[in-house]
Amino acid sequence: MKPVEIDPQLPEWKQKIERFVNHPKVQHFIVFLIVLNAALLGLETSPAVMQAFGAELVLLDHAILAVFIFEILLLITARGIKFFTDPWCVFDLVVVGIAVIPATESFSVLRALRVLRVLRLINKIESMRTVVAGLLNSLPSLASVAGLTAIIFYVFSVMATNLFGQDFPELFGSMGDSAFTLFQVMTLEGWSEGVARPIMEKMPQAWIFFLLFIMISTFVVVNMFIAVIVDSLNNLEKDTTKIKHEERSIHQDVSALRQQVADQKKDLDELKNLLKEQLARSK
Amino acid sequence: MKPVEIDPQLPEWKQKIERFVNHPKVQHFIVFLIVLNAALLGLETSPAVMQAFGAELVLLDHAILAVFIFEILLLITARGIKFFTDPWCVFDLVVVGIAVIPATESFSVLRALRVLRVLRLINKIESMRTVVAGLLNSLPSLASVAGLTAIIFYVFSVMATNLFGQDFPELFGSMGDSAFTLFQVMTLEGWSEGVARPIMEKMPQAWIFFLLFIMISTFVVVNMFIAVIVDSLNNLEKDTTKIKHEERSIHQDVSALRQQVADQKKDLDELKNLLKEQLARSK
Amino acid sequence: MKPVEIDPQLPEWKQKIERFVNHPKVQHFIVFLIVLNAALLGLETSPAVMQAFGAELVLLDHAILAVFIFEILLLITARGIKFFTDPWCVFDLVVVGIAVIPATESFSVLRALRVLRVLRLINKIESMRTVVAGLLNSLPSLASVAGLTAIIFYVFSVMATNLFGQDFPELFGSMGDSAFTLFQVMTLEGWSEGVARPIMEKMPQAWIFFLLFIMISTFVVVNMFIAVIVDSLNNLEKDTTKIKHEERSIHQDVSALRQQVADQKKDLDELKNLLKEQLARSK
Amino acid sequence: MKPVEIDPQLPEWKQKIERFVNHPKVQHFIVFLIVLNAALLGLETSPAVMQAFGAELVLLDHAILAVFIFEILLLITARGIKFFTDPWCVFDLVVVGIAVIPATESFSVLRALRVLRVLRLINKIESMRTVVAGLLNSLPSLASVAGLTAIIFYVFSVMATNLFGQDFPELFGSMGDSAFTLFQVMTLEGWSEGVARPIMEKMPQAWIFFLLFIMISTFVVVNMFIAVIVDSLNNLEKDTTKIKHEERSIHQDVSALRQQVADQKKDLDELKNLLKEQLARSK
Repeated sequence: MKPVEIDPQLPEWKQKIERFVNHPKVQHFIVFLIVLNAALLGLETSPAVMQAFGAELVLLDHAILAVFIFEILLLITARGIKFFTDPWCVFDLVVVGIAVIPATESFSVLRALRVLRVLRLINKIESMRTVVAGLLNSLPSLASVAGLTAIIFYVFSVMATNLFGQDFPELFGSMGDSAFTLFQVMTLEGWSEGVARPIMEKMPQAWIFFLLFIMISTFVVVNMFIAVIVDSLNNLEKDTTKIKHEERSIHQDVSALRQQVADQKKDLDELKNLLKEQLARSK
Repeated sequence: MKPVEIDPQLPEWKQKIERFVNHPKVQHFIVFLIVLNAALLGLETSPAVMQAFGAELVLLDHAILAVFIFEILLLITARGIKFFTDPWCVFDLVVVGIAVIPATESFSVLRALRVLRVLRLINKIESMRTVVAGLLNSLPSLASVAGLTAIIFYVFSVMATNLFGQDFPELFGSMGDSAFTLFQVMTLEGWSEGVARPIMEKMPQAWIFFLLFIMISTFVVVNMFIAVIVDSLNNLEKDTTKIKHEERSIHQDVSALRQQVADQKKDLDELKNLLKEQLARSK
Repeated sequence: MKPVEIDPQLPEWKQKIERFVNHPKVQHFIVFLIVLNAALLGLETSPAVMQAFGAELVLLDHAILAVFIFEILLLITARGIKFFTDPWCVFDLVVVGIAVIPATESFSVLRALRVLRVLRLINKIESMRTVVAGLLNSLPSLASVAGLTAIIFYVFSVMATNLFGQDFPELFGSMGDSAFTLFQVMTLEGWSEGVARPIMEKMPQAWIFFLLFIMISTFVVVNMFIAVIVDSLNNLEKDTTKIKHEERSIHQDVSALRQQVADQKKDLDELKNLLKEQLARSK
Repeated sequence: MKPVEIDPQLPEWKQKIERFVNHPKVQHFIVFLIVLNAALLGLETSPAVMQAFGAELVLLDHAILAVFIFEILLLITARGIKFFTDPWCVFDLVVVGIAVIPATESFSVLRALRVLRVLRLINKIESMRTVVAGLLNSLPSLASVAGLTAIIFYVFSVMATNLFGQDFPELFGSMGDSAFTLFQVMTLEGWSEGVARPIMEKMPQAWIFFLLFIMISTFVVVNMFIAVIVDSLNNLEKDTTKIKHEERSIHQDVSALRQQVADQKKDLDELKNLLKEQLARSK
């Protein structure tokens, strides 16, 4: 569960609601309901189960949904506008909200999206939230490469539609078809048997197009992941360089210090001589 | 072979058994038997060989099994309850135990599992055990990502069963079918020709589902492996930061030291002047 | 946009042209035109759109092309021969030039290449240029491995053509066919179902060829990418070794310094004794 | 070309041979012959070319081969037994030797192996030799993992032959068939459409076998490559730890030094007081 710091300046009743919702027992209960709900949604996919216990499952599903809505309403009441600034809260609101829509109308896609509720587990379990936050944090640094990949895809899609569209309408009939087929080629799935070879029978030079696309796209994607590691290494390299410079500076200081001490040695020798001279004289 | 420290407080006869079983010659003999057994199990897969030498092979197999059981019984006698706390010993017990069951009954699956005995080689060869221990040690750090992958699989399986189950019962007929098909899609094997394209002919929007699933699942899996490296790098980064701070602290100490020595220089000059003054006076 | 340093020794009118072309507003307008042009080229792939607005699209396309040509002509006028030494400028010239050729003749391939104009976006957007420069910089270090891969491909292609060419002319009929099929095998696409199994039915030993080729080629390619990381690590390792040596040298200096100071201590004690002796005598 | 140090204790005529063979001009000529030979072997794969110029090509091929044999004979004469201790020399001998065998008899496989001569390029080009040496050097550290993979393959092959051999003789009919099919499954090529799904239609539980095998084998292989990087990192980590300890030791020394110098300060103050006392007395 996410530990929540409650603003002590809030009115007493809002603090009470916060404390209630975030109480470990309440949160454990919510997690239990999410898991139970996930199991129900899994069972509902079986026609046999639905025929036998359909009504009960739907009822239980609605009851759980009611609890989720109640939890969110409580939090909105307690936090007001602040609720909508926490991305995880907005995420909760959306995935529970999706579940409300098909309760009134019933589009099959929206029904299918109800299962997104299970993703609330990620928010409720600490280690999951850390992993997902880590994954999301790595996204911005991938933005440039993603943009580059998008440009490459667009360019090759236009080219493929122009070159192969007329003869192979199923694979490259429109920009959308071409983009999908090129994505398939990039994943290397059936790129040769299913795409390149049939086209090469009619246009023998087509291999240039596919070779270039596979080499460029996989090179860009693989480098994207390697870049994550190499970036970390570069940070380390910078630190190491700083350490080296600081170390050299220390070494120079220590050398200067040895010179200082050696100079004092001369002073001391001088002193000794002066003293000995005096001692000799005072005899 | 694993070097075993024998508890000197054990009764003499138990120590003797330990020393006998762990004697290099005995262990080399066991390794030889494991390899021989592996070869026999390989030969037994050939119907021609079984017809010609079936009885002899089975006899030899039983003889080897007897030696294995004898080794384990000796160790249990010597170590008592401690035997069951060493995971490698329990592993030995299980894989040899599996071999005993089909000796009485004969389920084909259990017969097939007899070959797991060969895995005892891993325990007996030092470098193998290190590698396997390394692999197993990396598992806990993957637990969160594995959990996340499981949630993603469950969510997409429920969605796929709801969306495509009725029209494509072979691929997405039940939760189990969907999970298997999605695993196939995640490995990128025939995801387009075998799964996505047939579905898109009936539901043209299905590409969104498959694109999202492929991108999310491969991104999570690839990041899992990159994380192993980046974690190592972060540890290094922490160490490097500590070194930088300690270094700065050393530098400050050395600077302070130079000040101390410079101050002494003044003292020495003062002393010299005093002495010279005295010397002048005593003339 | 790329910040351009204008040589102050150029004639005033050339500087004016440079300042005009590189003015943020002009460059933003060019980027807008590139994106608009990309959208147009995408729309032109649709026969329906072309039938309805074909003439207008082509007109707009020509107008945009005219602006691009004008931009390049201005830059050539301003920079003269220097224009042709900047690889990005030459790149601009080529991709715009390609667009001019099919405006006169109309080969379908050249028409398709017109979309390469979209790649000018990479030059105009700072972060893209950084990413692409990074990718291109990593190429030279891959040259040896690429050469090795080329040799491996050549050797296996000759062997495959000799061994399987006669029986499987579609897969290995000529050096070109063999190289393409081996590239397919290297990407692991249908290497078994589509290539190795049919051949093994006629030549059962062919698995040796494919196993060797897959192991060698994937090992080389994977190591190519790992090498990028390990090279970075080796640089770090060298730095760390230098730090270690410098540190040891500092340590020795500090130890020597302690000895120096300890020697002075003796001097000081001697001085003290001399002084005390004198003091005692002068009483 | 590999720079060769010539043993000055060799008889003069042997040194002369060495100097001749390793002369840059001779070596450049050999490299030229290797490349020419590679081109010839490529041309010989074309039946049309062979019909037109077959005799000439074969003649040229024999001539080049004669030069190669002459080079090797010269080196053997000059180096004697030492020739056979240099692995690159033995490699040259073998690949040229292969070419001699089919010159007498004519097995198609041996004829195909003649192209291995092209691999001599690797030996002759410095940067290639470095890359290949690097790849070969990384092999020993992979030995344990390769051994583990071999055990896993053997165990799963025996199991697969026992479980699926009777019903699917083409895929798992013998140990060899099973090993090949499992290698295909490990490369994820058609593992589902071509192997797992057909089997699951008869044995619905077979997915457990394939899931386990794919997860274990890919996990082991991927970890093999990650291990190369993590090993480098661990070496770095050890160095960093040493630096940290040495640094702490330096810091302690510097602190002790500051104490020493502070103690001297007391001595100096004492001296000053003594001197002042004496000075006061001598007034």
